Amino acid sequence: MNFYTRKWVRPEDLNGNGTLFGGSLLRWIDEEAVVYAVLQLGNGRVVTKYMSEIDFVSSARQGDLIELGLVATAFGRTSLTLRAEARNMITRRSILTIERIVFVNLDADGDPVPHGHTEITYDRDRIPAPIDPPALD
Amino acid sequence: MNFYTRKWVRPEDLNGNGTLFGGSLLRWIDEEAVVYAVLQLGNGRVVTKYMSEIDFVSSARQGDLIELGLVATAFGRTSLTLRAEARNMITRRSILTIERIVFVNLDADGDPVPHGHTEITYDRDRIPAPIDPPALD
Amino acid sequence: MNFYTRKWVRPEDLNGNGTLFGGSLLRWIDEEAVVYAVLQLGNGRVVTKYMSEIDFVSSARQGDLIELGLVATAFGRTSLTLRAEARNMITRRSILTIERIVFVNLDADGDPVPHGHTEITYDRDRIPAPIDPPALD
Amino acid sequence: MNFYTRKWVRPEDLNGNGTLFGGSLLRWIDEEAVVYAVLQLGNGRVVTKYMSEIDFVSSARQGDLIELGLVATAFGRTSLTLRAEARNMITRRSILTIERIVFVNLDADGDPVPHGHTEITYDRDRIPAPIDPPALD
Amino acid sequence: MNFYTRKWVRPEDLNGNGTLFGGSLLRWIDEEAVVYAVLQLGNGRVVTKYMSEIDFVSSARQGDLIELGLVATAFGRTSLTLRAEARNMITRRSILTIERIVFVNLDADGDPVPHGHTEITYDRDRIPAPIDPPALD
Amino acid sequence: MNFYTRKWVRPEDLNGNGTLFGGSLLRWIDEEAVVYAVLQLGNGRVVTKYMSEIDFVSSARQGDLIELGLVATAFGRTSLTLRAEARNMITRRSILTIERIVFVNLDADGDPVPHGHTEITYDRDRIPAPIDPPALD
Repeated sequence: MNFYTRKWVRPEDLNGNGTLFGGSLLRWIDEEAVVYAVLQLGNGRVVTKYMSEIDFVSSARQGDLIELGLVATAFGRTSLTLRAEARNMITRRSILTIERIVFVNLDADGDPVPHGHTEITYDRDRIPAPIDPPALD
Repeated sequence: MNFYTRKWVRPEDLNGNGTLFGGSLLRWIDEEAVVYAVLQLGNGRVVTKYMSEIDFVSSARQGDLIELGLVATAFGRTSLTLRAEARNMITRRSILTIERIVFVNLDADGDPVPHGHTEITYDRDRIPAPIDPPALD
Repeated sequence: MNFYTRKWVRPEDLNGNGTLFGGSLLRWIDEEAVVYAVLQLGNGRVVTKYMSEIDFVSSARQGDLIELGLVATAFGRTSLTLRAEARNMITRRSILTIERIVFVNLDADGDPVPHGHTEITYDRDRIPAPIDPPALD
Repeated sequence: MNFYTRKWVRPEDLNGNGTLFGGSLLRWIDEEAVVYAVLQLGNGRVVTKYMSEIDFVSSARQGDLIELGLVATAFGRTSLTLRAEARNMITRRSILTIERIVFVNLDADGDPVPHGHTEITYDRDRIPAPIDPPALD
Repeated sequence: MNFYTRKWVRPEDLNGNGTLFGGSLLRWIDEEAVVYAVLQLGNGRVVTKYMSEIDFVSSARQGDLIELGLVATAFGRTSLTLRAEARNMITRRSILTIERIVFVNLDADGDPVPHGHTEITYDRDRIPAPIDPPALD
Repeated sequence: MNFYTRKWVRPEDLNGNGTLFGGSLLRWIDEEAVVYAVLQLGNGRVVTKYMSEIDFVSSARQGDLIELGLVATAFGRTSLTLRAEARNMITRRSILTIERIVFVNLDADGDPVPHGHTEITYDRDRIPAPIDPPALD
């Protein structure tokens, strides 16, 4: 698993009790996972379809440094499965882990479409085309 | 299940593709679930410990009205389990469901402590005491 | 008056003195009132036209649970008038009240148009049509 | 009336219909009014107590430039009354006006206390002392 | 140099150490400079092209009042150069200064175009036309 | 230079013209640089002291994937100098570069103090101690 994105916990990330707000953490992970999926599938039209159970192992507080890790664990025909972890950068203690986040690869009409990939790329050779904003009916 | 909090999807809630950002949705649900748990346990010192798998059933877009529903499904000795759903207010179509969100009831030292409750209150008769911000070592 | 949306006061909601930022509170109420008005008028094209005087009865601080209540008090030909209150969920002490928030019902050109309703619906049977984003001249 | 703070309307300031979110506008005005009040009273412990009725005269959209104006209109024994306006910087068309925003001057215990001023200062010669964050009981 | 926009430092503006987050400060200045440039060039299509070195002279903390000052220092054929300063409103102590922020004046295709101005206007007689959102290829 | 943190450009990151808001970009870089500096100096009490000139080479738009790169270029007695770049993850085109960002290493009183390091660590063996929030006088 590679850890990329890093966060410095600021007051705006805290909950009403003054510790790291779980909602902020989930938000960071969702964004990070989409970036990872887009790069692996070479398609900007991906949607989060499923997350397996989430264990909140430990918390964090203001000033903590956190990093987010991801790795592709399965390539389906139209889907991609990732494993995710957030951990404290200093102590390397896990904050939460999600065994499976499943993305679906969509075509321009929003329907699932085969992505044609079967393994992880490390080369960013899968270039997504630009996407028009969604039309309203 | 009772639906309380409502959201009007604004541009700041959208992802890079222009549909509802999953991270915003998870953030709303986490906040809502904490409020519900605090009221049921009569204790502001609760932490999210676990979320079961999440199905992202459908998406939403700018201008959609969304409501968040919660119900307590199990009272443990030191824990509380909730079921959560986000749905479109107009079509009542489900956006996501989470079968179990588990909160743990903490004492002033941050250790699990029995909450003494075994069923849902509808009376808000469980009044949490104020909480000091966490001390730094 | 029914209370729906709930908030857990987090550090990002505080002002420079460390108490609840009035601007955050007004923002929550404005969003909540729009949701209520859209559901009553069955039209997503509504605009806030007027708020009567606002009494800031008491304040709130980090960790407080707040709920927002609304009720329709008058249906005009092209307008709808609501009463709003924000209160502490635990103590039920009022934080602020607004006697009248007036919305105007608009057509696709942004002009006032009769909405045809004269009383509160509790059934969400008034379904707004989707709205295109505003064109630039 | 002097206009100071300026805003460039960005997507994060828009509502679900794609026009300026009223809640963002009220937030800007509340912050601006506090700054003005603190400077006039020479005290950082001021709270918004009252706003008179608000007329939403016109709207704004993405890319618009907006400026916020304030003027002190009455000095009470422990209070200060301001008039506020938000307007389009280019067309100078009014967006909203608030005839009276009333602030109360507080002591360290949060009780109203005379401020000793009777007219507007243009010199920033009233220097507020630093404020400790509010203690929890 | 004229100082316009004012900020009251709130918890959401603080970094992990509890002092003013440099990123928030840079964000405020960038927005303020764009507003100033649009008014001087009478064109909403301006982009920040360059900032000279930034000295972070002093910091700020929660509750501080800050004001942002700008002045046009050079009009190029297609560019405009500003000088910027952020300072504490009470002590007038400088927080940061930027000697040169350069904006480029663009046409509808995003190419630099002469703006035809050679000196500062104080009259807001340069009215920008509305801008369509950027097309995607 | 190593690239870590990644961003997916969402509507909340756009300016009034609908392209990437420069202020958001500077905010991301400032946060990322602090994380890097804290890890290199083994001290959470670091402040940004200086940024050299910034070239805004190209822009970005909604849906773009961006990554932030940093490398330590000089260790002073009490300071650390970094080089930073933001670039498009797909095209690898540079968005902006900052040749020098200088951090100063502080002691508990906020005064510069020698950090004792002379070269980059890749081991995260420099563990910052927790920091108390700043006291108010």
